Amino acid sequence: MATLTVEDAKKLAAYTAIDTHFPADAKVVGIGSGSTVVYCVDRIVEKKAKGEIPDGCVFIPTGFQSKELIINGGLNLGAIDGYPVLDVAFDGADEVDSDLNCIKGGGACLFQEKLVAICAKKFVLVADYRKNSEKLGAQWIQGVPIEVVPLAHAKVSADLKAMGALNVTLRLGGKAKAGPVITDNCNTIIDAHFGAIADPVELATKIKMLVGVVEVGLFIQMADAAYFGNENGSVTAKFNDGSVKLIE
Amino acid sequence: MATLTVEDAKKLAAYTAIDTHFPADAKVVGIGSGSTVVYCVDRIVEKKAKGEIPDGCVFIPTGFQSKELIINGGLNLGAIDGYPVLDVAFDGADEVDSDLNCIKGGGACLFQEKLVAICAKKFVLVADYRKNSEKLGAQWIQGVPIEVVPLAHAKVSADLKAMGALNVTLRLGGKAKAGPVITDNCNTIIDAHFGAIADPVELATKIKMLVGVVEVGLFIQMADAAYFGNENGSVTAKFNDGSVKLIE
Amino acid sequence: MATLTVEDAKKLAAYTAIDTHFPADAKVVGIGSGSTVVYCVDRIVEKKAKGEIPDGCVFIPTGFQSKELIINGGLNLGAIDGYPVLDVAFDGADEVDSDLNCIKGGGACLFQEKLVAICAKKFVLVADYRKNSEKLGAQWIQGVPIEVVPLAHAKVSADLKAMGALNVTLRLGGKAKAGPVITDNCNTIIDAHFGAIADPVELATKIKMLVGVVEVGLFIQMADAAYFGNENGSVTAKFNDGSVKLIE
Amino acid sequence: MATLTVEDAKKLAAYTAIDTHFPADAKVVGIGSGSTVVYCVDRIVEKKAKGEIPDGCVFIPTGFQSKELIINGGLNLGAIDGYPVLDVAFDGADEVDSDLNCIKGGGACLFQEKLVAICAKKFVLVADYRKNSEKLGAQWIQGVPIEVVPLAHAKVSADLKAMGALNVTLRLGGKAKAGPVITDNCNTIIDAHFGAIADPVELATKIKMLVGVVEVGLFIQMADAAYFGNENGSVTAKFNDGSVKLIE
Repeated sequence: MATLTVEDAKKLAAYTAIDTHFPADAKVVGIGSGSTVVYCVDRIVEKKAKGEIPDGCVFIPTGFQSKELIINGGLNLGAIDGYPVLDVAFDGADEVDSDLNCIKGGGACLFQEKLVAICAKKFVLVADYRKNSEKLGAQWIQGVPIEVVPLAHAKVSADLKAMGALNVTLRLGGKAKAGPVITDNCNTIIDAHFGAIADPVELATKIKMLVGVVEVGLFIQMADAAYFGNENGSVTAKFNDGSVKLIE
Repeated sequence: MATLTVEDAKKLAAYTAIDTHFPADAKVVGIGSGSTVVYCVDRIVEKKAKGEIPDGCVFIPTGFQSKELIINGGLNLGAIDGYPVLDVAFDGADEVDSDLNCIKGGGACLFQEKLVAICAKKFVLVADYRKNSEKLGAQWIQGVPIEVVPLAHAKVSADLKAMGALNVTLRLGGKAKAGPVITDNCNTIIDAHFGAIADPVELATKIKMLVGVVEVGLFIQMADAAYFGNENGSVTAKFNDGSVKLIE
Repeated sequence: MATLTVEDAKKLAAYTAIDTHFPADAKVVGIGSGSTVVYCVDRIVEKKAKGEIPDGCVFIPTGFQSKELIINGGLNLGAIDGYPVLDVAFDGADEVDSDLNCIKGGGACLFQEKLVAICAKKFVLVADYRKNSEKLGAQWIQGVPIEVVPLAHAKVSADLKAMGALNVTLRLGGKAKAGPVITDNCNTIIDAHFGAIADPVELATKIKMLVGVVEVGLFIQMADAAYFGNENGSVTAKFNDGSVKLIE
Repeated sequence: MATLTVEDAKKLAAYTAIDTHFPADAKVVGIGSGSTVVYCVDRIVEKKAKGEIPDGCVFIPTGFQSKELIINGGLNLGAIDGYPVLDVAFDGADEVDSDLNCIKGGGACLFQEKLVAICAKKFVLVADYRKNSEKLGAQWIQGVPIEVVPLAHAKVSADLKAMGALNVTLRLGGKAKAGPVITDNCNTIIDAHFGAIADPVELATKIKMLVGVVEVGLFIQMADAAYFGNENGSVTAKFNDGSVKLIE
């Protein structure tokens, strides 16, 4: 049995994801956020040093952290508005269910993450075992992050309660910012907890249809594969055909 | 037969709408935009002078023009984020179909207009006869205005073309602003023309579900009544139960 | 000697400030933020209950917290863009020097706070004794908060270092938001520490003149009076003519 | 004497500017906006085809138009927040005085234009003869464009009138957008006409110091050279040492 630490397991998950899904002829690659994604970029930088990354390959960040990772890694930085089609994107998640649906937006960057994910031909999740779940909302109980136009936050909060949310909170900025968090798109974030979500497809649709909602942190039927680093140092790989693989 | 001008007819439409739908005990009233709405505010100011408007009644604008109208009319100005429930809202439209669905957003203010409309218990349209149509997209051919997060405009444009739009344009600022129009919510506007729209409910849903779309300028099943000033000075009133009334 | 707690002292400072500076014929009053301002609003609500506040008096917030205080206190809410002249504004501060210059912006709301302060005929500070200082930067060592257009943050950071800042940090959102704090005006915040500031007038001017800087959290020659609640329950009042008064 | 058209003259001005000021070892180059800048990019693309542009050279736009020019020209697109130091920037202007001070912002993009200009080691203006003036405000009478935080527009308008502005206008969006123009930084534009400006250094400082002002469309002591295409097909070149050269 392995004697790896969690960090080693996350690294193994990230390396396996990159080694499996980074195309040899990659032109445009999305880089998400989270602690496991850091290892993805490490692996890409290693590949680049070995001459395994095509020269013109451009990397598209999903926010501030990944922009820094790309620049510090010496990779070519691009922007999603200039590259609406990506070969593949790698990103973390706050919780992933057995169908590879996931909750994202704990860091308030869900809009750009979703935009990059949907523009990618392949979307690969990397995370640690704590994000591996059966039903969304079972483990991530701070609520589904929802990006909302500031003027509409009172109305959308009322809508979400009427839809059965157990808990609806306008996310505040804490010590760094008095009042609500403002996203990179100048919107606010509402966290709405619905308990364990029975039908994430229906819920995501209902929320997105609300007037005032810009985007929902439910990523439905978007991921092709997910790699989880386990506590014991192994990696659990799940695929969108339902298959699961344990890598030790 | 009447000898009224179009302006007289618009005034008659506005006055009839206010006289019919302004509640005696109004607490919160939405004021939209457009040339006919100016007459609505005139009528409200007249009512106020006669003591027919409750003292604490607050008026909620849908944008810059209506804010000015409210202030200049000496009415109490409120904001939609403080009053998520309105008794009634009066607004113009770019085109209204036989089911009282409408296209709005010619002035790029569709988000706030839709937010005010959906927060109102009653939504009343006032317009001139040129906006009275059978099918949306038949007369208003510059396209359905769609508010889009700037980063996503290329992706959403591609999506709209794939959905069958005949014409998709990122709206530019003209002489006043080089580059794209920026809305009051810091987004861009895409105008997408689909010809005469067979099923506006389905189209509005499909567009709003796109990642990157904040709101769509299709107002579906929202209006309770519509008043059109006719060229001959009469007013055509349509109601959401399908009934039509000619007021001469 | 008093046996008041710090909270009691803050309350006494706030009550004294309101009782001294709230005009009997007030029309427009600014309400800032901070823990002492809460007691200001309490006192205003008491006055209102006693019929001492003119009916039409409008209260202008400097941000989310004060907006909530105004609404929850049952006071008339206004907005600074509709009322460019205020009779008086009450606000907290992060540090106040012996000339009543102050540092503000710990909560990232410095722009709206400065706008309200400069639009007020009288500007009154309320705070606890820890904010009472000789020289700005002596006690508040996390740096002068500076609001900066996002595109310019790298350039402004370099400028500030060249100007002699000991420490320059792009403020991050912490747990609530990955990446930089975004202000209510869609900008970023840079905190620049210059040590104890010898000449705050000159420093504020130099920083504001930098391309990319929207506003500086140095409020120079703006306050008319400052009330500090002391640890021992007394209140120190300072005035812009240099006089100091101890209220026990 | 030449028989060139104005367009030919603009092209000659642009080509001369590029041929004179584009460094052989350029790493980062700013591209502004305006009809003459189009010819600058044409010339750069020609140079690139001849292998005269270093491979890694990155081009930084000042807005939407120049971003399109860079992408369509097949040049490497960068962004100003990633490259705070540029070798040179080429841009147009609305009016240039005899000291190479200029007014910019007719297209509402003055902030990004000024940021790129100040980050450039050399700043070169290209324009047609109508922009060549003695005193700023003599020919460009629609006013100095000033970028202002939306909440502050009423206050800043009052300030500008108090400073002696003959005409102060909140710029409106025209047919494309009801209400005020919103800039790419989510601000408004005020155009303030002061007649022929006697002391542009002092005026620019006074305006920028106003609370609410983000940036001023007066570019003072920033340009190193200016090239004007004349009606007769010649080019007037002016330099920041006061020298003037006529190129025929």
